[in-house]
Amino acid sequence: MTKTKAGRPRSEKAKQAVLNSTYELLTESGGKKLTIEAIAQKAGVGKPTIYRWWPSLADIVLEAVLNQADVKIPVPPYESLNTTLRQFLRSSMKSINEGDGSNLRYLMSLAQQDESFRDRFRENFVAKRQEILKSILRQAVDANDISSTQDLDMLVDLIFGSMWYRLLIGHGTMDEVFADKLTDIVIKLGNSDEVC
Amino acid sequence: MTKTKAGRPRSEKAKQAVLNSTYELLTESGGKKLTIEAIAQKAGVGKPTIYRWWPSLADIVLEAVLNQADVKIPVPPYESLNTTLRQFLRSSMKSINEGDGSNLRYLMSLAQQDESFRDRFRENFVAKRQEILKSILRQAVDANDISSTQDLDMLVDLIFGSMWYRLLIGHGTMDEVFADKLTDIVIKLGNSDEVC
Repeated sequence: MTKTKAGRPRSEKAKQAVLNSTYELLTESGGKKLTIEAIAQKAGVGKPTIYRWWPSLADIVLEAVLNQADVKIPVPPYESLNTTLRQFLRSSMKSINEGDGSNLRYLMSLAQQDESFRDRFRENFVAKRQEILKSILRQAVDANDISSTQDLDMLVDLIFGSMWYRLLIGHGTMDEVFADKLTDIVIKLGNSDEVC
Repeated sequence: MTKTKAGRPRSEKAKQAVLNSTYELLTESGGKKLTIEAIAQKAGVGKPTIYRWWPSLADIVLEAVLNQADVKIPVPPYESLNTTLRQFLRSSMKSINEGDGSNLRYLMSLAQQDESFRDRFRENFVAKRQEILKSILRQAVDANDISSTQDLDMLVDLIFGSMWYRLLIGHGTMDEVFADKLTDIVIKLGNSDEVC
């Protein structure tokens, strides 16, 4: 796509307006008022433009929620596994409790109904969140807080897996206590190859 | 509900026919041909009878899948955490790979769309599967294979959480290797309070 000098910033601004409007509509109504029409109207962008940028409503939600996650769940500079992972997981729980949990449940549900969306959800959302968590774990290996023989992907599955499980089923709380338990478990597992 | 002497066995038989027919339709078509009509016809049971027994199609699927899980994932008599949990998790992976994975994904997706079904899914399905896994862990505590200070509910969340996560997202395999990794992790965590 070729763009004029003036075109690029304008389209970036419009794209951001679409994402912000989507996120506001999600927050206001729990997704009940969320349609392409409503987003287009709120963002002041034509429907055809929106359809050119995203294959479906679900894909707009995916990007809007990912954007928010990057803002709301900052990755603090690495200090120690104990401090940095705990802080990251506590922010994650907070974001989920403050409304993003229902957005995540909506995305996961759609991913089960549409295989091609599931691929995009895995690649454009889940893989990015996994990479952020894994970067913390990699720094922990560098700092000798996690043994270098540990399977970091498996640790990511344990952490995000149990969080998604509680979120989707609703049998357990998503709070600081849970964030702290997960942190303690990763510390234990991370050190378990050390000679004692 | 009062039942005649002859009525009870007949209705139990009809109920089982509905569950078996549901499971067969799920397996044959991946759920695509699954309607109350198709189930009623295959089972030779009237639609009004089916509606009297189950609030929705999803609830029939829930019970049919739970029934199959009990059959396909036997709980072996407790031997050791290493042997018994490994065997149980390997059977679980096998059942998921042989087709039950898509049924589970269907149920989880519905649970995100309908809050009252989510409650029934949690209570009538998930809680029962959690209880079965927890009974193995409880026997492990009795056999001193897991420290009595361990939070067994948390271990269940780690195991089933990471399994659901891989199943729903599709980023990792559901196989014996994964079953064995999970078993090894539980063994490590279970013993982590012991003085070394």
